[in-house]
Amino acid sequence: MQSGMMDILIKNATIITQNAKRETLKGDILVRDGVIAEVAKGIAGKAEFVLDGRGKLALPGLVNMHTHVAMTLLRGYGEGLPLRRWLREKIWPTEEKETAADAHAAAQLAMLEMIRGGTTAMAEMCRMGVPEIARAAREAGIRAHISLGLFDLLPGRALEGELRAMEKSIGEPDRLVQYGVAPHSPYMCSEELLRGAARFAGKRKLRLHIHVSETREEVLGIMRDKKVSPYEYLDKAGVLGGNAIAAHGSWVSKKEIALAGKRKISLVHTPASNLKLATGGICPVVEYGSAGANVCMGTDGAASNNSLDMFAEMKLTALLQKHRYWKADALPPARALDFATINGARALGIDSGRIEKGALADIVLLERGPNLTPCNDPVSNIVYAANPSNVTDVIIDGKLVMEGRRIRTLDEAAVLQRAEDAAREMRRR
Amino acid sequence: MQSGMMDILIKNATIITQNAKRETLKGDILVRDGVIAEVAKGIAGKAEFVLDGRGKLALPGLVNMHTHVAMTLLRGYGEGLPLRRWLREKIWPTEEKETAADAHAAAQLAMLEMIRGGTTAMAEMCRMGVPEIARAAREAGIRAHISLGLFDLLPGRALEGELRAMEKSIGEPDRLVQYGVAPHSPYMCSEELLRGAARFAGKRKLRLHIHVSETREEVLGIMRDKKVSPYEYLDKAGVLGGNAIAAHGSWVSKKEIALAGKRKISLVHTPASNLKLATGGICPVVEYGSAGANVCMGTDGAASNNSLDMFAEMKLTALLQKHRYWKADALPPARALDFATINGARALGIDSGRIEKGALADIVLLERGPNLTPCNDPVSNIVYAANPSNVTDVIIDGKLVMEGRRIRTLDEAAVLQRAEDAAREMRRR
Repeated sequence: MQSGMMDILIKNATIITQNAKRETLKGDILVRDGVIAEVAKGIAGKAEFVLDGRGKLALPGLVNMHTHVAMTLLRGYGEGLPLRRWLREKIWPTEEKETAADAHAAAQLAMLEMIRGGTTAMAEMCRMGVPEIARAAREAGIRAHISLGLFDLLPGRALEGELRAMEKSIGEPDRLVQYGVAPHSPYMCSEELLRGAARFAGKRKLRLHIHVSETREEVLGIMRDKKVSPYEYLDKAGVLGGNAIAAHGSWVSKKEIALAGKRKISLVHTPASNLKLATGGICPVVEYGSAGANVCMGTDGAASNNSLDMFAEMKLTALLQKHRYWKADALPPARALDFATINGARALGIDSGRIEKGALADIVLLERGPNLTPCNDPVSNIVYAANPSNVTDVIIDGKLVMEGRRIRTLDEAAVLQRAEDAAREMRRR
Repeated sequence: MQSGMMDILIKNATIITQNAKRETLKGDILVRDGVIAEVAKGIAGKAEFVLDGRGKLALPGLVNMHTHVAMTLLRGYGEGLPLRRWLREKIWPTEEKETAADAHAAAQLAMLEMIRGGTTAMAEMCRMGVPEIARAAREAGIRAHISLGLFDLLPGRALEGELRAMEKSIGEPDRLVQYGVAPHSPYMCSEELLRGAARFAGKRKLRLHIHVSETREEVLGIMRDKKVSPYEYLDKAGVLGGNAIAAHGSWVSKKEIALAGKRKISLVHTPASNLKLATGGICPVVEYGSAGANVCMGTDGAASNNSLDMFAEMKLTALLQKHRYWKADALPPARALDFATINGARALGIDSGRIEKGALADIVLLERGPNLTPCNDPVSNIVYAANPSNVTDVIIDGKLVMEGRRIRTLDEAAVLQRAEDAAREMRRR
């Protein structure tokens, strides 16, 4: 048995399989060596851990496809200022003061919150601290795809330095941690940097994480300067492909959606952050999906959300599509659940997001509680009524990371104290 | 000491007072005979219950100003159908089969969910079961304002019968339960019923709970049939005044907002329900507030939300205003917290929603946990990052209703089982 991997048997749960038929089954789940060894009724035999699933829902772990965990210390900081003043006076100057130790503290904090919210994998774009965030993920026992955000259109930054930093940021991947390439956005990167990043990602078979078309301002800027739309510009630079993870993507034309679909990109919808920053656009995820894009979901950072709760994000995604199209059946809850589970796993190239024999063992148990009662429709309950209070147990890569609401991998009180202290220090500096 | 009232001492909490200066204090809270006896540092003396508030936030209880608790058994039922088919094929026929025992089971279930989510008072409009809902509130230990929904523009209903049912529905109020009058809406009530209800409410000094301008269709219908806007029509019928609690109010003109403000109505914003039913309108709560209306918040029923979580509703309220006006500072989190606490209490005419000497003792303790760390801004954390998992203790009317996440007033497992059974029975009937 590999270190940290255990045999776990979940008995008598209601299992939201997310298999091809999207079946809900009643039965047992056997986890062995990091994968799901069996899903059946009445599995016999012994296991190191036996979890009583009676009255509980077993759900594939949620995948948060756009995070900035190193910013978690800035949660609620500078609240109430208009966007530009908030960024210029509060967020950017404070971020500049962040140390590698801060990034590690912030990442552990964010990962605790995500685990408590049923998230088992995340895609991070950070300004610094790639090794510290990777270490935090291994300590917490959560899957992380980590990329260093690159920008050469800022004072003090230049193409060559960014390309070197990119190469240097790629560590040794393992079962939990993957590394990717993250040219920040078409408006913060030169075309050369975009091309260089895309070429490098292609050569090294890495994923490419980027911000696209979050605000009108940036879209109009690209169209003015480049004479093409942002997606066309990125396509020309070689960025758009099956390995691309594009966050936001709200301000788009039908032609751009068709292009994103044709290139099979993964589109990450971040509804709470978009509303909070008042970007004005509601991402047309249904249209992206119909065009062929792989639609996922993310919370964005705690500074612009301010939580890392994928249940809230699923609900908001379903609600906003209904609102956008004035159509109460615009996005069924089952689609939102796909975005947050199996589509996220696909974007990361991992066989997770489903509870079936052979898949990676990333499983969340939800206690029903009053908010999930009655269970007329378990998927509707999960998307519209669940919250982190329902999450009791979390298994990631076959390891029991949270058991009966107790985190097993980290000393939670110590992480909270360290984060609180680091945030106070950062504000003072 | 009155029955059920206890002396409670909360030590060393961070107190969100919601006092006139909106101060956040560190200290102790003494609860005696249902009211807050003292808020100070280092209160000495003994108490029956001593709660350790270290690292916790003490918040005035949240007030959910628009609920349909008797519909809680329909949570997630008929999901995925378009609105009209959902109502006609699923919700209405099933509601018709509801018994008084179902209403009681549903109400207890809803109240458990609300208590677990930090809600200490609610305003209910129901189709039936007023005495059962009142009994459930007394058993659960939650404050409830209960009104029977009246409509005479439906087949089988008539003015005289509705007026008689209205008079009969008014029970004996006590510290927890109040009764009100609820003409359903301008499109389900004749002008005579609206007038009769308003007159009765005035004479008996009762509050008047009504649905207004939720959908375009109803607004256009009133304007076509009555030649005036819905608010003008209601004003003419005597409905608009300081005792009016108007739910939704999304599709309105500036003139109507001015009228609502002038009449000092309480406007209840229900953002999740409006989005879920794809009504298309985002209620301009900032404008209502500026005009003089008392803005509150509600979840609406579990069939159209599908949770009863006021933290989610506060966040959504703040996010949607930013989105509506493309302005990141359109609604500061402190305003959203006011809507959910002190404004709700004002609408109900109770001295709650604040933690100050002399106010009713409706207090919620929140554990910080990773999602509320760091605490750069406690109010921002509560509005944007809190969820029911943070709620550890709930005091209502001086009584400890939940202690360390354990409900003290009801047998929770029995309530859940009864609700699940009743929902299954209802679907079968």
